[in-house]
Amino acid sequence: MSENSESNSPAISVVGIPFDDNSSFMFGTAQAPNAIREALNSHSSNLTAENEIDIGELNRWSDLGDLNIDDAYTAFKEIQSHTAKILAQQSKIITLGGDHSITFPVVKAHAEVYSDLNILHIDAHPDLYDSLDGNRHSHASPFARIMEKDLAKRLVQVGIRTINAHQREQADKYGVEVNEMKNGIPAKLKFDGPVYLSVDMDCLDPAFAPGVAHYEPGGMTIREVINIIHQFKGHLIGADIVEYNPTRDINGITAMASAKFLKEIIARMLAEL
Amino acid sequence: MSENSESNSPAISVVGIPFDDNSSFMFGTAQAPNAIREALNSHSSNLTAENEIDIGELNRWSDLGDLNIDDAYTAFKEIQSHTAKILAQQSKIITLGGDHSITFPVVKAHAEVYSDLNILHIDAHPDLYDSLDGNRHSHASPFARIMEKDLAKRLVQVGIRTINAHQREQADKYGVEVNEMKNGIPAKLKFDGPVYLSVDMDCLDPAFAPGVAHYEPGGMTIREVINIIHQFKGHLIGADIVEYNPTRDINGITAMASAKFLKEIIARMLAEL
Amino acid sequence: MSENSESNSPAISVVGIPFDDNSSFMFGTAQAPNAIREALNSHSSNLTAENEIDIGELNRWSDLGDLNIDDAYTAFKEIQSHTAKILAQQSKIITLGGDHSITFPVVKAHAEVYSDLNILHIDAHPDLYDSLDGNRHSHASPFARIMEKDLAKRLVQVGIRTINAHQREQADKYGVEVNEMKNGIPAKLKFDGPVYLSVDMDCLDPAFAPGVAHYEPGGMTIREVINIIHQFKGHLIGADIVEYNPTRDINGITAMASAKFLKEIIARMLAEL
Amino acid sequence: MSENSESNSPAISVVGIPFDDNSSFMFGTAQAPNAIREALNSHSSNLTAENEIDIGELNRWSDLGDLNIDDAYTAFKEIQSHTAKILAQQSKIITLGGDHSITFPVVKAHAEVYSDLNILHIDAHPDLYDSLDGNRHSHASPFARIMEKDLAKRLVQVGIRTINAHQREQADKYGVEVNEMKNGIPAKLKFDGPVYLSVDMDCLDPAFAPGVAHYEPGGMTIREVINIIHQFKGHLIGADIVEYNPTRDINGITAMASAKFLKEIIARMLAEL
Amino acid sequence: MSENSESNSPAISVVGIPFDDNSSFMFGTAQAPNAIREALNSHSSNLTAENEIDIGELNRWSDLGDLNIDDAYTAFKEIQSHTAKILAQQSKIITLGGDHSITFPVVKAHAEVYSDLNILHIDAHPDLYDSLDGNRHSHASPFARIMEKDLAKRLVQVGIRTINAHQREQADKYGVEVNEMKNGIPAKLKFDGPVYLSVDMDCLDPAFAPGVAHYEPGGMTIREVINIIHQFKGHLIGADIVEYNPTRDINGITAMASAKFLKEIIARMLAEL
Amino acid sequence: MSENSESNSPAISVVGIPFDDNSSFMFGTAQAPNAIREALNSHSSNLTAENEIDIGELNRWSDLGDLNIDDAYTAFKEIQSHTAKILAQQSKIITLGGDHSITFPVVKAHAEVYSDLNILHIDAHPDLYDSLDGNRHSHASPFARIMEKDLAKRLVQVGIRTINAHQREQADKYGVEVNEMKNGIPAKLKFDGPVYLSVDMDCLDPAFAPGVAHYEPGGMTIREVINIIHQFKGHLIGADIVEYNPTRDINGITAMASAKFLKEIIARMLAEL
Repeated sequence: MSENSESNSPAISVVGIPFDDNSSFMFGTAQAPNAIREALNSHSSNLTAENEIDIGELNRWSDLGDLNIDDAYTAFKEIQSHTAKILAQQSKIITLGGDHSITFPVVKAHAEVYSDLNILHIDAHPDLYDSLDGNRHSHASPFARIMEKDLAKRLVQVGIRTINAHQREQADKYGVEVNEMKNGIPAKLKFDGPVYLSVDMDCLDPAFAPGVAHYEPGGMTIREVINIIHQFKGHLIGADIVEYNPTRDINGITAMASAKFLKEIIARMLAEL
Repeated sequence: MSENSESNSPAISVVGIPFDDNSSFMFGTAQAPNAIREALNSHSSNLTAENEIDIGELNRWSDLGDLNIDDAYTAFKEIQSHTAKILAQQSKIITLGGDHSITFPVVKAHAEVYSDLNILHIDAHPDLYDSLDGNRHSHASPFARIMEKDLAKRLVQVGIRTINAHQREQADKYGVEVNEMKNGIPAKLKFDGPVYLSVDMDCLDPAFAPGVAHYEPGGMTIREVINIIHQFKGHLIGADIVEYNPTRDINGITAMASAKFLKEIIARMLAEL
Repeated sequence: MSENSESNSPAISVVGIPFDDNSSFMFGTAQAPNAIREALNSHSSNLTAENEIDIGELNRWSDLGDLNIDDAYTAFKEIQSHTAKILAQQSKIITLGGDHSITFPVVKAHAEVYSDLNILHIDAHPDLYDSLDGNRHSHASPFARIMEKDLAKRLVQVGIRTINAHQREQADKYGVEVNEMKNGIPAKLKFDGPVYLSVDMDCLDPAFAPGVAHYEPGGMTIREVINIIHQFKGHLIGADIVEYNPTRDINGITAMASAKFLKEIIARMLAEL
Repeated sequence: MSENSESNSPAISVVGIPFDDNSSFMFGTAQAPNAIREALNSHSSNLTAENEIDIGELNRWSDLGDLNIDDAYTAFKEIQSHTAKILAQQSKIITLGGDHSITFPVVKAHAEVYSDLNILHIDAHPDLYDSLDGNRHSHASPFARIMEKDLAKRLVQVGIRTINAHQREQADKYGVEVNEMKNGIPAKLKFDGPVYLSVDMDCLDPAFAPGVAHYEPGGMTIREVINIIHQFKGHLIGADIVEYNPTRDINGITAMASAKFLKEIIARMLAEL
Repeated sequence: MSENSESNSPAISVVGIPFDDNSSFMFGTAQAPNAIREALNSHSSNLTAENEIDIGELNRWSDLGDLNIDDAYTAFKEIQSHTAKILAQQSKIITLGGDHSITFPVVKAHAEVYSDLNILHIDAHPDLYDSLDGNRHSHASPFARIMEKDLAKRLVQVGIRTINAHQREQADKYGVEVNEMKNGIPAKLKFDGPVYLSVDMDCLDPAFAPGVAHYEPGGMTIREVINIIHQFKGHLIGADIVEYNPTRDINGITAMASAKFLKEIIARMLAEL
Repeated sequence: MSENSESNSPAISVVGIPFDDNSSFMFGTAQAPNAIREALNSHSSNLTAENEIDIGELNRWSDLGDLNIDDAYTAFKEIQSHTAKILAQQSKIITLGGDHSITFPVVKAHAEVYSDLNILHIDAHPDLYDSLDGNRHSHASPFARIMEKDLAKRLVQVGIRTINAHQREQADKYGVEVNEMKNGIPAKLKFDGPVYLSVDMDCLDPAFAPGVAHYEPGGMTIREVINIIHQFKGHLIGADIVEYNPTRDINGITAMASAKFLKEIIARMLAEL
């Protein structure tokens, strides 16, 4: 665990959640957090983000290492309480999955702090299944859980290209704003109040991210995702990067993409402090 | 062979044509039809197309399995007569290649039914060689054959980036409407009457489709192809997806792209029934 | 479905079982049967096995295509009854998985015909878990089920390199003959009576088979597996090839390995008819 | 060394510079020149560029083979004098790297001929480090050397996405026109007088160019680069293609991209003769 | 950093040394330690070694996480003193590289504790260069440093296939026992007293380990390396696994091989306690 | 073209033959010669062979570059006459293919010089087809041509695993000594008089050589091939390395294997001068 911050309560905390028990097609995302860290720190690049902030210099964030999850049955509680603890220290948090199921407990902890939470969700999938294969905590279900518990004021999805009838119903029921790929990337995304950003690496076209379980062709480019990270209006108060799967990666190409998103997210958060 | 239809004459028939004898650089596309089927049915995704039709539910199409080709010398006759037979049963047909040479006999059968056929051809190559390496049925020649036999009213090509002097002459001679990549993807494609769609997987940039024989950099994105499938004006009455080569694919990435195109094509056809 | 046999009851039947619901780490083996068929028939090789039998010529075997599994809950019953039906027609059967869980119902059907069945099991794993993640039909458990139901006289395992304390207990309890890789490949394998052969593609070192879910370094070479197929003493009466996962394969390398094993198994069976 | 020209002084000379001693993360680009040649001449494509010029027919260019570099310490002198010699013969020159450090001596030779040189530099990195790891001739430093020696009137960079504070200072100091990816690709690029074009293959998103040392996600598409080659206003008088690394390439995908750029650059130069 | 031990001074300590500054061809091995940890703990396998010890259960070893190296110039001192500190706590140490240069300071610390140290070195290269490219601490030189300082009683090398005249001289000078691949793997390796084991992943044939910088065909199989780990006579008191490079790995295949070696080394050490 | 020799008539000449017109499944081997040269000279390794000869120092061999083949119809004549010319200068020759068809004209030229030629042929395939797909000069036919013209006293094949009835007949007819993989690698290979060595890269198991067109699982290891190069008894007077296909290679792994064989062959020849 490398400490990038001098104080005990950094303004931004990065936490790995190596948990993939709720995956439905392939496991392996539990190996992501460390692979993303390594890519971020690779000698092949530098730590200056595109907004000119050098996150290697600006010591107001800290990588707290991985959350140890003792028991899959209590995982969500552990994730939620750990997140809550960090938030209680006035630190923002960026989690590195793991599969997308972790977003539910992480958002739950945020919702207790932010009453008017917006969620910006970039993904190939709406992840609104009431349950998948009988699992209501499936990585295809976090936003069903979030919305049914009314944890977010708005849920805006970008990159979607697999929405089926059930999930369309769910989206309608919960008022989810689904931006489908067939209609392009929205030119402007604007939020009032705090925004939580959830980036599923399979939002990308598989060409850009071979290291994911679910290949959904017709996806976003890396630049399109970066543009959103840079440009959406609102106050970014938390984020996750999920579903990177190192066991299916080629020459670390998807690790580098994940690390790039992490760098840009940290830098935007630092700029907004 | 999985039956997705209850009736004997489905509205849409999918047929595999595992034939690659007319390839000029690499064989292996004969392995494509089954690989595409498997990808289409992979647990990693669902069967709902972007126009909201769930092709897993709507049983008006059927996968008839592969055409058995007994003899390469009579292959074209077999392909043509098999296609004709299906068309005679009032079913539309989508063929899965195989190399691009199969498009000639397939279109020939369509031309006997549709007197005013339009062809929308998405490819890196114009495939207008009068002959290649002495083979007039080469996979680089189907549209020369089609046009010299006057089988199509219009031939509109998109994605082209390898047209040479000979093929430019051919295009002029036959009045082919060539949209070159250097000029971008045409914003609107409009046809009067029936449209046959031929998708060569090498229309894509090799980044999106490593599993093809002919890498032609500077190609289309998967989204650009999907947009065309969704948006061209006209009545889609037949289609093929050709040149996917599983022997050069990485983690099935090109199989998934082919399956996505198939899903969107079926769904558009179903929507137009 | 390509018919290689003239009669209705071929001496040997090949059946695909595209079922991977009992996988524990990655899905995707359901895509294997067709990929293996395509590789077997690739123009890049021929159909003559190393015992000089040309399985393309000798029409006493038939590929019956895939078993359609309607319902995961009844899958094992369907697999078993389908196998039984084929056996009842005096045909031997080779199944193409799918994950390793299918071996249990397939062997069950064999055990009803062969009272003194031997099983030769080539694998990285003993697959003797009483249950894995609460699933007693896990792909890590088929041989626990087979042995507790006393379906085999002998179970001889080769290639094993992951046996843990629980599985060692199971092996002791059921008298399994475990040949661990650390002791080398047994020079001679001899059985009295009928032998059922189960080949898990992860028996191979990952270098030879990148297209599997579970990489277990220190495995067998392809030649070592072929030698066993050729040389074990006993009467080969049934076989399966399981756990090939096309979604993780590079340039079809593991498809070709699977197809090679299939060719050699068919040819040995044909030689023993 | 294949001669494509009949005269002793072709209008355009292609020269390989297999030199990678100034790389900072991975070596291997020394293997690029021949790999690019082979890809250019692959049977899988043809030699007609998108401006309709068939560079296989138009014999006013010649591949002079590789420059032999006897001694790394004198490499820059050798590169510069070799370039100067070719320029003295009234031939334009396109060099194939090698790492990006070679651009400094190549441009130096050009600057002696062209007093008002413009440089169009397409890259992920500004390569303006005063020194990297103590090496002032690092592949991250050529444009610092070029600008401090006042060899170019204008230096216009496109594709940049890794500029840090030091390099921003350098850019300011030397008046470099940096077009960052976050602001998109400039629609128009216009130069008065001669333009030297330097293409670093890592300008591309890693999806399009896995065969480079430095993966910088969020990069250009191949089409965007081709469009620039086609469309910038000015007189193209020299070029290099650098940083392709065959030791990290998959199925030759990056070799083909490099060869495509070479074909389009030659063809534009031929059109401007 | 996951603690696998209850006490403060575990019998065996695993330490990552993410340091690759002395690499001569490619960087990236600094990313190895975490990638190996992740592979070791992957759900796709278990933690029982082939000697029946379950290293997940036997809590006498601990992963102490990575050594932070503040300054490349003092790196060797830091590595040595950190190693010495751990040894002083009566713990054995296994280090995960990083490049092979780290072996020198690690062995130096061991030599202060063990006066009669034997080294078993498994590698494609003898790593006996007096200096490489002017660097006496190059990853091609650790054993020159070790032997000139007389830190080992015996140095026995296995897997060697690149020894040149200079290194042969060095081997003669220092009495290194070089077992070249051309003569096969020695059947018996026997040492009196303590043995330090250094495993360079490029000892393997590149087929088994695509994730290394230096491909040296004609190498060892994974099984041959495991057999040596299991079978050499002597008391294993320390070890390193170096030169794994995740930036060149395919689907994590080399990560799994490294993790396998780590598991077997820990288990042998635990068995010898 | 790099000159490694000072004299005009080196003792050994290396010549590339970038010709793949007689391939039956995939083209691309024409790209091999340069890729092999680059790998041989890669900074990642050195030029000392396992017999202690440093081919970078011993200047009695020379790389003459590639043979330019003007016309496919006269290719064989060109190859033969070029080979004859080199042999007439008292130089031995090693050719780098290209596909295996080139071996026929190369051997023809040798047979005119050596009346009692032995051929040692390492390959997955016997390449004894009288014709393939109607092509008597197919890459599957060179040894049929060689033997029917009585150009060799003995033809000894190693590595064979695809011999079918036709080729078995051919082998019998011509007295070819076929060593099939199923019987292992012959421990001793002994020849009286001159030996020509032909190495087809697909002799290797595909794990070791992904960069070939024809994957034949169950093949040789790289070490087994090297051992033969080192150990066969006889006088090595000429050789070829064929069928490497860079368009299907991963990270240059097969290029390195080809270069290793080249290095060992040159070194043996130099040792025998």
